[in-house]
Amino acid sequence: MIRTVQIDLETRGHCDVKDVTAALQERLTNSGMQEGQATVFVAGSTAGVTTVEFEPGLIKDLNEFFQRIIPEGPDYHHHDTWGDDNGSSHVRAALLKPALSIPFKAGRLLLGTWQQVVVIDFDTRPRRRSVIFQFMGE
Amino acid sequence: MIRTVQIDLETRGHCDVKDVTAALQERLTNSGMQEGQATVFVAGSTAGVTTVEFEPGLIKDLNEFFQRIIPEGPDYHHHDTWGDDNGSSHVRAALLKPALSIPFKAGRLLLGTWQQVVVIDFDTRPRRRSVIFQFMGE
Amino acid sequence: MIRTVQIDLETRGHCDVKDVTAALQERLTNSGMQEGQATVFVAGSTAGVTTVEFEPGLIKDLNEFFQRIIPEGPDYHHHDTWGDDNGSSHVRAALLKPALSIPFKAGRLLLGTWQQVVVIDFDTRPRRRSVIFQFMGE
Repeated sequence: MIRTVQIDLETRGHCDVKDVTAALQERLTNSGMQEGQATVFVAGSTAGVTTVEFEPGLIKDLNEFFQRIIPEGPDYHHHDTWGDDNGSSHVRAALLKPALSIPFKAGRLLLGTWQQVVVIDFDTRPRRRSVIFQFMGE
Repeated sequence: MIRTVQIDLETRGHCDVKDVTAALQERLTNSGMQEGQATVFVAGSTAGVTTVEFEPGLIKDLNEFFQRIIPEGPDYHHHDTWGDDNGSSHVRAALLKPALSIPFKAGRLLLGTWQQVVVIDFDTRPRRRSVIFQFMGE
Repeated sequence: MIRTVQIDLETRGHCDVKDVTAALQERLTNSGMQEGQATVFVAGSTAGVTTVEFEPGLIKDLNEFFQRIIPEGPDYHHHDTWGDDNGSSHVRAALLKPALSIPFKAGRLLLGTWQQVVVIDFDTRPRRRSVIFQFMGE
C-alpha cells in the first residue's frame, strides 16, 4: 500500500528549522498503515530534511554551525550564473539532502523520544515549501 | 513483504563507529527476501548511519574530521537548555542523519566490496542503542 | 512491484558531479510504475548521491566546499593502511552517503524544477561506477 500526500510549509528561510513530526504522524495514522516506511521529501534545491531534538538552544547551534562551514554571503560562483544571492543555500542543501525515511510499526514512527523530524529551509528569503510525505507499507 | 527487527548495540560514544553489515545481511537472509530495500535507522538524536570502508585508519580520520568541524566541548547553546554536555553530538547527528537505505537483490545487499554499513554514536558517554533494520521487498 | 537496474557511469573523480536525473526518469517510465519511491545507490565507499541545481557555478561551489572542509592531500591515516592517497574521498563519501530516495507519482519523480539527482565521485582518479536504480511501487 502506498499513500503520497503533500503539505505546504511557510518558512522564513535563513536556516529556519520546522518541526513536521506531528503532521507526519497524523497523516500516517490517517492512512491506517501499521508497518512500513515514511519518507519525507522536500522539493527544491535550497532545503533539507533531518532529525534533531527540537529545542531552541540546538536550533541556534545548528544555525551557527551552517553559518560557520557554509556562510551566507557573496562568495559563490552560483551568483555569477543567475545574479542570485543564495549560493550558500544550495551548498547547504546539497550537503544535508532533501530526503529522510523513517520506519514505523504498530502505526507509530520509530523515533526516539527526543528526536523530531525537521525540514530546514536554507534559502535567503521566506518561502512557501511543498513537502511530500510518502508512506509505503501495510 | 515487510520485516522490522531491532538490534541492540553497546557503544563507547565519542564517535564510536560500529560495523553492522554482517548483522544486517544475516537478518536479510533470515527474512528470505530476494529483492528490495533494507533501511537502517537509529532511534535517538545523537547518532547517525552511513557507509565507510571499515579499517582503523579511516575510523581515526572520521573521528578527527568530526572533531575538527563540530568539536566536543562547552560551546553549545544546547547546554543552556538542559545542563547537558553533548551539543556537539546533536549537531553531528543532525548532519549525518539517522537513516540509510541499501538495495538488495538475489538476497544480497548491493554494497561494494570495501563498503560497510556503520552506526556512529556521537554521544559523550557509553550508550545502549536500539537500531532498527527494516526490509521491504519480495 | 520492484524493479532494480544498474547503470554504469564514467567519472573523472576529484568531486566529479554527474547528473543522472534523465536516466532515472527514463528507467522509471520504462518500469510503468505510477506511484512509489526511486532509490539511487552508488556501490563503493568513495562516492555519494544528493540533489543540486546542476549548473556550472554551483558545481564549482561544491568542489570548493569539499576541498575546504575535507581537503585532498596526504594527511589521512587511511594512507598508512593501504598506501592509498584517497583518504579525503572516503571521508567525503561517508559524510554525503551513498543513497537517496525520491518519491514519484503519476509516473514522475517529485523533484523541484531546478533540482537534479547527482552522483558525486570523490575518488582521486577516473572511475567506472556501478549505480543502482531501484523502484518500489505500483
